[in-house]
Amino acid sequence: MKNNVNRELPEKWMQKWDYQGYQSSQTGNPVIQRVAPKVHVSTGDGKVVDSLEQLVPKLVHNGMTISFHHHFRNGDFVFNQVMRVIIDAGIQDLTLAPSSLTDVMNDIVIEAIQKGTVTQITSSGMRGSLGDFVSHGHLKNPVIFRSHGGRARAIEDGDLRIDVAFLGVPNADRLGNANGMAGQAVFGSLGYALMDAQYANQVVLLTDNLVAYPNTPASIKQTQVDYVVPVAQVGDPDKIGSGATRFTKDPKELKIASLVNEVITHSPYFQDGFSFQTGSGGAALAVTRYLRQSMLDHHFQAAFALGGITKPTTDLLNEGLVRKIMDVQDFDRGAAESMQTNPKQQEIDASWYADPNNKGAMVDQLDIAILSALEVDTQFNVNVMSGSDGVIRGAIGGHQDAAHAKLTIICAPLVRGRIATIVPAVTTIVTPGDSIDVVVTEYGIAINPRRSDLMAALQQIPGVPVLSIAELQALAQKKVGQPQPLTFTEQTVALIEYRDGTIIDQIKAVQD
Amino acid sequence: MKNNVNRELPEKWMQKWDYQGYQSSQTGNPVIQRVAPKVHVSTGDGKVVDSLEQLVPKLVHNGMTISFHHHFRNGDFVFNQVMRVIIDAGIQDLTLAPSSLTDVMNDIVIEAIQKGTVTQITSSGMRGSLGDFVSHGHLKNPVIFRSHGGRARAIEDGDLRIDVAFLGVPNADRLGNANGMAGQAVFGSLGYALMDAQYANQVVLLTDNLVAYPNTPASIKQTQVDYVVPVAQVGDPDKIGSGATRFTKDPKELKIASLVNEVITHSPYFQDGFSFQTGSGGAALAVTRYLRQSMLDHHFQAAFALGGITKPTTDLLNEGLVRKIMDVQDFDRGAAESMQTNPKQQEIDASWYADPNNKGAMVDQLDIAILSALEVDTQFNVNVMSGSDGVIRGAIGGHQDAAHAKLTIICAPLVRGRIATIVPAVTTIVTPGDSIDVVVTEYGIAINPRRSDLMAALQQIPGVPVLSIAELQALAQKKVGQPQPLTFTEQTVALIEYRDGTIIDQIKAVQD
Repeated sequence: MKNNVNRELPEKWMQKWDYQGYQSSQTGNPVIQRVAPKVHVSTGDGKVVDSLEQLVPKLVHNGMTISFHHHFRNGDFVFNQVMRVIIDAGIQDLTLAPSSLTDVMNDIVIEAIQKGTVTQITSSGMRGSLGDFVSHGHLKNPVIFRSHGGRARAIEDGDLRIDVAFLGVPNADRLGNANGMAGQAVFGSLGYALMDAQYANQVVLLTDNLVAYPNTPASIKQTQVDYVVPVAQVGDPDKIGSGATRFTKDPKELKIASLVNEVITHSPYFQDGFSFQTGSGGAALAVTRYLRQSMLDHHFQAAFALGGITKPTTDLLNEGLVRKIMDVQDFDRGAAESMQTNPKQQEIDASWYADPNNKGAMVDQLDIAILSALEVDTQFNVNVMSGSDGVIRGAIGGHQDAAHAKLTIICAPLVRGRIATIVPAVTTIVTPGDSIDVVVTEYGIAINPRRSDLMAALQQIPGVPVLSIAELQALAQKKVGQPQPLTFTEQTVALIEYRDGTIIDQIKAVQD
Repeated sequence: MKNNVNRELPEKWMQKWDYQGYQSSQTGNPVIQRVAPKVHVSTGDGKVVDSLEQLVPKLVHNGMTISFHHHFRNGDFVFNQVMRVIIDAGIQDLTLAPSSLTDVMNDIVIEAIQKGTVTQITSSGMRGSLGDFVSHGHLKNPVIFRSHGGRARAIEDGDLRIDVAFLGVPNADRLGNANGMAGQAVFGSLGYALMDAQYANQVVLLTDNLVAYPNTPASIKQTQVDYVVPVAQVGDPDKIGSGATRFTKDPKELKIASLVNEVITHSPYFQDGFSFQTGSGGAALAVTRYLRQSMLDHHFQAAFALGGITKPTTDLLNEGLVRKIMDVQDFDRGAAESMQTNPKQQEIDASWYADPNNKGAMVDQLDIAILSALEVDTQFNVNVMSGSDGVIRGAIGGHQDAAHAKLTIICAPLVRGRIATIVPAVTTIVTPGDSIDVVVTEYGIAINPRRSDLMAALQQIPGVPVLSIAELQALAQKKVGQPQPLTFTEQTVALIEYRDGTIIDQIKAVQD
């Protein structure tokens, strides 16, 4: 069977897991019965448990689904501690359902797969040795990749039922009131973890900072927490920050950022009270800087910035250029600490951020999204998941979600080294071209023909060459040539869910 | 059938509504499957609806359950507006399930009952003409009275399923982000309404203050709201405040407050880091003042104050004598405005406050509760619901919930006019004597014999006469004589739920 973006889907898994193929980026107006957890009633006394070794076998049983958050990113000390205990306890056949997997988790996940501890994974992404391992077909079941909004939807609608969530926090009291803002290993918004806290049947907090009761502000509430486990250290503060936090000097990135700024400021969405999500990384930070100047020049304020927040964005908040920050995740310590002091930086959970089956998520109200890509094809489909060698090395993150913005801009270099970014057909479709409006490269921009309004608005910007996406692709191919087609085995190693829970693509095992 | 406090229960309703009789004030450790609402998916655009007249018939249908909050108390302009439209639309057979009913709602509820619009009510309480009307048997089904924690439990466990909630707020944006802290008719914490916002299948906000999107802090979130209806005025700021806000000069109240303070300070719970709930009213405010001095004298700080918050309590927060306020409701504008500026004043919902089927509610952690009573009997059972004439004129409020404190003190004058407060048997049992520890009157205190530890601790306080509860009752009877026994018909007009959802008593129709 093929779906609406012409991708072949594996009938075995589609049937076994009762999946539908992707149809459309529009959700419509269904009425959805949400689900709720089982609550183990207590007075709240006796939640503090010193030994993970004693607690884990009481809670985690063969076949269960367990979860973690990835707010500590590569500074995470929690995941390895818990998984070590789970593996050593001999527990089998678990579904691992973290909000995402970071590189520091790779070794132990591979070990858990090899020992039969983990037989199924759902995540936003994976990279490095784990991506390679899975891409070679070593996991029993295909990984299910979901966007952050898609994970929220799956949890709220009952597609992903978490038995036990293990959530690291930089502070908590003895009943489990906790936030991400104070302590040694602060990461700011608990946005993704709030889903697990609200919906998991049992919630275990791990903290290196047991504070006086009652701990406020309580992002995670005592009413959601079953156990609190004191540990030596939940994270390495120096490794929590992700990506570039300094202004790029790369001329290609600066060129792209400048073109993105031109596209934004010439679009009909750039007006007082507009909204944007820029994300992290060198080009994104550069866009934020250019955008700041444009806002000053036009005397515009943004109604809100969304995301994935960095210090340059909280600086805009302090400067009054951004009125509110809606904050599901903080990419650096500056942004994390700002949330503690600035009430205009509102913590939001992944549902509020992007669950498509909602009464309006933030992304539904978003004007402008700046997103990256590993590949974009001539149908404007975007791949942020698999490399040009077909190996899993990415994460959906909020890509499908933020692409729901009124103006979605993909910024990417035309080529990376000897590899084209703009291609005839992406290796893996993550975000459908249907929701992409403009592609910006250092050689010029391509506008989705679906958007004739933008064609008109952006056609005549001085210094901004407008090409067709086919022309961009041809230009890339001219530079790097036509690569050998990839070869895969027949084994499906991953399914890519669209945010609405349909399947937009699969990833097959690589053939070395 | 009789329950564990020896009250006869109406078999017809116990069977029809599948109720159990009250057994114990201890909840134990059940595992409870919670429920979740149906979500009507949208992008969030188009929520603002100008006309209640057009909206109500679309949402409210015969036989549904509708709800309101009572945070505006007697300054409420929302309830009457909505009920007028519902009655005029000819809708029938509704269950009215507000967090409570205040006097300004009485006339239209009576009209709604008379016209068949409302055939069932569940509430924390009712007073005045409505209490009189119901006590005379004019409602088709018995009213179900629930405590605030009991209502939260009923909502979360699925006993009370709300189809449409109409919630007035002093500010909201076009998607429904709202709080109770800013605007003309501020009431502070949205604690009770947060249950409706989270669990009702459809949520309609009414506001007189449509603010820029996105509105923060968002106590009610856009993900919970279906419609936003702008109205001229949601409430009268001058009538939102409840009860006394000035220090009492009544010597009887001062005497009681002083004795309460002696009981507290001589109890084992009075130490640095203790916690308390004092509530509103003259004696409560006086207790807070005495307690302040005792805390200063002993260099003690309270870890938290809970409740029902008044300005004298937020003053303690600002003074540093209280470290945190856990705030489910604000009784005056001072307390409401303090929540906006002081991050140590944490808004909590009714579940966190007092749902007994929880992973630890605030009341489970509460050391000392000061509560009032219409009647206390020689088994320490308390009535806060029916008058000495048997007519409904009260509200459970958080009475059953806060009585879960480690030290629950009932303060009440021995007699009120010609009516005894301490009686052989209360007219209606609301809070079981099992959870009451000390009764304080202006003539002395009585300690529940169950609490031999308190007997020892409180026996020898200079100036604090300790009597048995029977002695207090005899003293009251000596002063006012023995009243004629009340006569009731066989019709059950109300059931009193204990907070765990069992039935602790019934109220029968009065015989004039």
